[in-house]
Amino acid sequence: MTYPPLFTLDLEGVFTPEIWITVAERSGIPELRRTTRDEPDYDKLMRYRLDLLRRHGLTLHHIRQVIAGMDLLPGACDFLRWLQERGPVIILSDTFYEFATPLLAKLGYPTLFCNSLRTDSAGLITDYILRLPDGKRQAVRALKDIHFRVIAIGDSYNDITMLLEADHGILFRPPPNVMADYPQLPVTTGYPDLQKHIQSLL
Amino acid sequence: MTYPPLFTLDLEGVFTPEIWITVAERSGIPELRRTTRDEPDYDKLMRYRLDLLRRHGLTLHHIRQVIAGMDLLPGACDFLRWLQERGPVIILSDTFYEFATPLLAKLGYPTLFCNSLRTDSAGLITDYILRLPDGKRQAVRALKDIHFRVIAIGDSYNDITMLLEADHGILFRPPPNVMADYPQLPVTTGYPDLQKHIQSLL
Repeated sequence: MTYPPLFTLDLEGVFTPEIWITVAERSGIPELRRTTRDEPDYDKLMRYRLDLLRRHGLTLHHIRQVIAGMDLLPGACDFLRWLQERGPVIILSDTFYEFATPLLAKLGYPTLFCNSLRTDSAGLITDYILRLPDGKRQAVRALKDIHFRVIAIGDSYNDITMLLEADHGILFRPPPNVMADYPQLPVTTGYPDLQKHIQSLL
Repeated sequence: MTYPPLFTLDLEGVFTPEIWITVAERSGIPELRRTTRDEPDYDKLMRYRLDLLRRHGLTLHHIRQVIAGMDLLPGACDFLRWLQERGPVIILSDTFYEFATPLLAKLGYPTLFCNSLRTDSAGLITDYILRLPDGKRQAVRALKDIHFRVIAIGDSYNDITMLLEADHGILFRPPPNVMADYPQLPVTTGYPDLQKHIQSLL
């Protein structure tokens, strides 16, 4: 064997349900169901979300309570462990450390690169901080620069530049519009299928 | 808060005992006790080690058995978990995936960047593969390029370029010669001390 590949993966849709959709359901604000699957412009989507939260008086504390009650996708922990036995794993997400902590604990604290939030004294979210624009792709590029062969896995529009930058990009349970827009990316439908595909690349 | 820092740490001396010293003791080959603490030229040290293993007929399988019997440093798991709750963690080591797997399992599979080995049909180690030269420093540089503030922790000569490249480099239980050669680096003597120092940087 030579050195193993490095795996980068999206968090929501790969290991956990979509955070914003869960928050929408538990808070009774259906407009929060919009995700990057629907709106590819991330900043536009975030301004829309923060505005909704503010208008409904939903604090970070409240949202963290909702997230703490979320379950991982069935089989997520076993799949992550399987992957970690085969090479270094980094989760690349557009979510926020302030949201992700309860989910990371359930996954055994894998390495996560994501963004952060700003709150005011009342606990309302006032802004979000992107570590850098197009962060998922930039992370893959940086990892390739230090000679890793990168296998990337994601499900949504915000994963596409990461999947195209990686040595191997794999779609996992993508919605039909993402699949249709990127026919060059292989599609997997569940963990066994994804594991089989990854195994063929090792 | 803005986004959290990223932590890079050495494996041996920070989370585990020195692998080669343990192998030397359990195999009765005292010449294997030489480490990067004694010999800063890594390639020279590795050629010396592989030659010794070959002359004594020690296979990779045998060495992995020795490593599987090693304990982590007392408190290592709790310290790692404490760190993982505060930001992404990447372990940067000059060891080999083939050696590290049993230790990674005991640590809950943190993300590890390291090197690999080549073996022959008899299971003897014939060569080692560096992913890239000066890999620890290059990794820190790549992580800074994607806008992380990097806090690096190590104990030995092979950590120095990583510690100097990081935004904050911290020595952990270094030998006297390393301390004397790099007086500009802060020195910590145990996990509580190290945690206190890290806390002051958050």
